[in-house]
Order: sequence, then C-alpha cells, then structure tokens
Amino acid sequence: MLATRTLLSQQTVAVLSRQPACFVHHGDYGNWGNTNVALVFSGCGWWDGTDVHEGVYTMYHLSRNGARFQMFAPNQQQMHVMDHMKKQPISGDNRNMMMESARFHHGQVKRQMQDLSSLDVNNFDAVIFPGGHGIVKNLSSFMKDGKDCKLHNDVERVLKEFHHSSKPIGLASMAPLLACRVLPSVEVTMGHERDEKTNWGNWPQTNMVEAVKSMGARHVVPHVDEKNKVVSTPSFMWETDYHYHYIFDGIGNMVKHVMRLSSK
Amino acid sequence: MLATRTLLSQQTVAVLSRQPACFVHHGDYGNWGNTNVALVFSGCGWWDGTDVHEGVYTMYHLSRNGARFQMFAPNQQQMHVMDHMKKQPISGDNRNMMMESARFHHGQVKRQMQDLSSLDVNNFDAVIFPGGHGIVKNLSSFMKDGKDCKLHNDVERVLKEFHHSSKPIGLASMAPLLACRVLPSVEVTMGHERDEKTNWGNWPQTNMVEAVKSMGARHVVPHVDEKNKVVSTPSFMWETDYHYHYIFDGIGNMVKHVMRLSSK
Repeated sequence: MLATRTLLSQQTVAVLSRQPACFVHHGDYGNWGNTNVALVFSGCGWWDGTDVHEGVYTMYHLSRNGARFQMFAPNQQQMHVMDHMKKQPISGDNRNMMMESARFHHGQVKRQMQDLSSLDVNNFDAVIFPGGHGIVKNLSSFMKDGKDCKLHNDVERVLKEFHHSSKPIGLASMAPLLACRVLPSVEVTMGHERDEKTNWGNWPQTNMVEAVKSMGARHVVPHVDEKNKVVSTPSFMWETDYHYHYIFDGIGNMVKHVMRLSSK
Repeated sequence: MLATRTLLSQQTVAVLSRQPACFVHHGDYGNWGNTNVALVFSGCGWWDGTDVHEGVYTMYHLSRNGARFQMFAPNQQQMHVMDHMKKQPISGDNRNMMMESARFHHGQVKRQMQDLSSLDVNNFDAVIFPGGHGIVKNLSSFMKDGKDCKLHNDVERVLKEFHHSSKPIGLASMAPLLACRVLPSVEVTMGHERDEKTNWGNWPQTNMVEAVKSMGARHVVPHVDEKNKVVSTPSFMWETDYHYHYIFDGIGNMVKHVMRLSSK
C-alpha cells in the first residue's frame, strides 16, 4: 500500500507542470497521494446542515494534499430549514440532506454525491465528518436529547466500521459528539471548556464539551487520539467575525493527520 | 490612508500571539490590513447562486490577509432553485438570495448580510463578486439574453460607482460578464478560449468567453487590468473533479491584487 502511494505521489508531482497556467500553484503536497476519503455531509449551512466553510476547507485540504474523496449524505429530509439571517426555523419549508449537500459538488464524476447507506468501509482509507448543526439535528438527536442522543443508523454503522477496521476518523467542530457516543473512552477536542472571549472570537458551545465528557470521552486540547485514530478540530466552536483562516488551518491539520494515520 | 493601514497591520501582527492555541497559524499577511471590502453574493450554490467554494475561498483569503469585509445580496427571489444532483430546476420551490447568501455568514456582527440596495461605495475600498450561476441567472439576464443581457439595477450601479471612484473590482469565474457589460473596453479573463481537456479538468463555458469579447472586452490570460483596476480569475470556468486547490490559488491571487490596488 505504501509503495502504491509513493508511486502515485511521484506521478502527481510529474503532472503538476501541466496544470492550467492561470492558476498559480505553490507546492504543499503530502506523501499520501493515494488516500481515498469518504466525506459525510448533512445539508448545506451552519444552522441546519454542514457548514459551508468547514465542508469547503476539508475538500480543499484533501485536494491540496493529493487525496481522492467521495461525498455521502443521508437521502432523507433535514430536521428543519433555518433562516440564517434570523436564526429561526422557516415553517413549511423542508429540504433533502443529499440534494442540499450536492451544492458542495463540482465536476463530472458519476455519483459524486451518494446515499450514506451505500458507504462501504472497504472502499475507503478514512472518513471525515465536517461540522455544522446538521451533526446535532440530522445525524444525531443531540439537539433534542443531549448526552443521551441517538445517532442516525448509518452514521453509527460507519463510525463503528471504520473504528473496527482501524481506519482514521476526522471530525470538525461539533462532529466529535458522534464518535463520543459510540466509541468507548475516545479522546477528542471541541475547543475551550470555558467561554473565553477575545477581540476576535469566543467559545459559546461549552455545553457540548460538558456533554462529551459525560458520555465518557476525554476532552483534550491535543486533538489526535493516536490509539483510536480519531482526529478532531474545534473549527466554528470558536465563534469569530473575521478570522476564518484559523478555522482553515485547524481543518488543514485534521486532514493531514487523517491522511498520515491512514498509511499506518 | 497608507499610514493607517500600516498601523493596523502592525496591530494585527501584535495580536496574533494571542490566537487560540488549537489553531496553528502560518503567517501570510499582506500589508493591506485595513482594507474594507464589499462582497456581493447571489444565493448559495454553483447552479443557482454563489458557488460555495468561490465564496468561502474569497472570505478565507480576505481573512488571511487581514482585511475586513461586509456581505451583500439582493433581497429578492432567485430566478429558480436547482436540484444540484440532477442539475434541473425544482418546480414550485423558491428562495430569497439574501437569506440563502447568509449561509456563508458566521459571527455576531450585526447586519453582516445586508441588502445590496444599501451598498454605499463611500464605505468600502473595493468590491468582489464571487462566481456561480447566480451571476447569469440572478445578477444579470445573461442566461436568457446572452451578450445583450441586462444587469440587476444595483449591480450596475455598484460596478459603475466603484469604477468611477477608481476603486478595484474583483471577479471570479463568470462574474467578469457583469463588468464587461457596463465598463467600456475592460480587460478580463474567463479562462481558456477553447475547451482543452486534461486529466484533471476542462473548460466547458467557452460560449461565455465569446460573449464577453462580443461585448467589447479584451479577453486576456493575465487577469489584472491595472488601468481599470479590474481583477478576474477563471475559478470553476475550469471544471475539475478533485483539483479544487488550483481554484483556491486563483482566488487568492485575485484577492491580493484587489487589496494591492485598493491602496493605490
């Protein structure tokens, strides 16, 4: 497997000289060019699905590091649709998670967005869940049930199968909740445990940190659980007006650790 | 103005040491830290609004380079809502551009997403239009009328006011169409003029390149029109399955040139 990765990585370097001249490339490739990653989405938007920034950053970092990826989402209705200006549900509106998640998709690959029920662990080296309130509204019942929440059947199956196969799991912002619910004694980070304000942001979701601790998880700032191959990054658990690039860097680190662990 | 920018840039450097430790920062700040940029959105999604990647990349690069920004969109219905899996309109669905564009927003700044009719050129140093089919469906009638299209009233007003004030205009993917329609003899790029296929992508929208040329624009690969302060990048005019990071780099260059030109 490692030999194949190295070979493809060399091919990747060779073809870079043929990229369209109007996009300037600065080399930043890892050595895990053959990693094939399943991405699990839950809609399109921070308040009712997958956050657009977290989803896009994850796809960017996989792309930059030469990975392939396949997008999945449940082919089911979202819990509700949120007005992202008023931060209130819109009555009478409903949207399908898979159709909305397809808003992240580009290109011509057939079936690029697939039903989560078809995700087969044998076809992938790792799985990543970008964050957003879809995690607590669509992929679990956390919004209603808190620490006693149930996971979407396919989410529970996927997490257990990747863990059982010793394949890495990447989690952003509130997504660690999902792993904490089904993997015993996992270590994750969801950011700071107190809502410490700075000029550029604060940590309003400390109730979720309390919840994962009460589920039996260890909450730590170092975000790589090497033993369980679970990598987490707090992302928009840190609320900020302008400093999006810190979120970007955190997701970049999560992706790189997931790719590194997938080669072990 | 330059003195103020330098001062704020120094302040930015000084405060970086206090960023949350769980996001690793790699320094990449420009010298235009006080640039205040208006961003114009047209929904949320490549096929009926602002592309999620182009919108997110633009916000990231402004953030990374220390700029401030304010989001705007028309407070009006989209032309239609597209099923992004089937690439077909969904009959009976309709969405408001400003509400959908707010899916790009984070943070607590009041009125972060504003009605485009309230955009006052005097409050900003530059304006950027990320791409997506919202450009040709919502912000102009190009999808119906081609090269003879009309622009949304506020889009036409904003472009003319920034140009008249000698303030830079940034445009991604199909957004250059808007500038070509109202600014005489502008130079833009929308990518390659022929649909040259490679292993990683191709250029399916060459009809739009023909259209801007017939509007009187000069289509060039160097994408900075220094005289008119119009900066364009082809973005997803290049269709790709995995190589999102080239798009990212192109938007990064566009943002940096816009910020550079805003200090002239």
